Amino acid sequence: MPRNNDPGKISGYHAHIYYDRATRDVAERLRRVIPRRFRVELGRWREEPVGPHPQSMYQVKFRVKEFPRIVPWLMLNRGGLSVLVHPNTGDDYQDHAFNALWLGDRLTLRLDVFRKLGAKPTLQPSRPARKAPKHPVARPTIASA
Amino acid sequence: MPRNNDPGKISGYHAHIYYDRATRDVAERLRRVIPRRFRVELGRWREEPVGPHPQSMYQVKFRVKEFPRIVPWLMLNRGGLSVLVHPNTGDDYQDHAFNALWLGDRLTLRLDVFRKLGAKPTLQPSRPARKAPKHPVARPTIASA
Repeated sequence: MPRNNDPGKISGYHAHIYYDRATRDVAERLRRVIPRRFRVELGRWREEPVGPHPQSMYQVKFRVKEFPRIVPWLMLNRGGLSVLVHPNTGDDYQDHAFNALWLGDRLTLRLDVFRKLGAKPTLQPSRPARKAPKHPVARPTIASA
Repeated sequence: MPRNNDPGKISGYHAHIYYDRATRDVAERLRRVIPRRFRVELGRWREEPVGPHPQSMYQVKFRVKEFPRIVPWLMLNRGGLSVLVHPNTGDDYQDHAFNALWLGDRLTLRLDVFRKLGAKPTLQPSRPARKAPKHPVARPTIASA
């Protein structure tokens, strides 16, 4: 166990809200409500698996200070959907594999994408999906995995 | 999906830190560090399954305002242990079965204890375990289950 792994290095969070055909209406309702209640940046609908995500989802990006507002709300209002909330510490593999919290059923993430990419995943709302970053960061391997 | 299920009804949280023989040392380290860093009330070691908890654990009780401090810290410092964090809203079944978040591997809780007890579980540190409350609350069934 790393001692005093400082949460101060968390720059923000992503929540990934998973849905399928049967639950898309619930995901739609959440998607309408969340930006009205919280300061977030919504990713677009991802109907197909993308990056480490094995199921349809959209991303909700929020800052550290929103954490105590949106996470408890999601705990009570996720409507049965699986939600992954992971911090962004600069290590995407760690953040998805070990540092995340789950609401509802946990999905098996495709963590090998981080090894393949060797860098940050391309899940920013404004970027195209499944495209390797133009400038891979210096850290090519996931030593801590 | 209930609309606007208000997090204001959360009176506090319990984190349950699970361990086994192989990981008890990690649990011990966390148990030493947590009360030094956070305002919490530690439950005693529960070596045997108790209430809904299928594995050895201890409880960490904290207030709402501690949530944004301790939960991100646990995300980064749980040392591989499974941690259940559930709110206390007055409905123990809902809080454990649906309103909780999980860090690490999710365990299968023994949720039937809430139906058997028909009331709040007896997991307060100062009370004996596995004892039915003297005054069961009026709500005998879990209609929302």
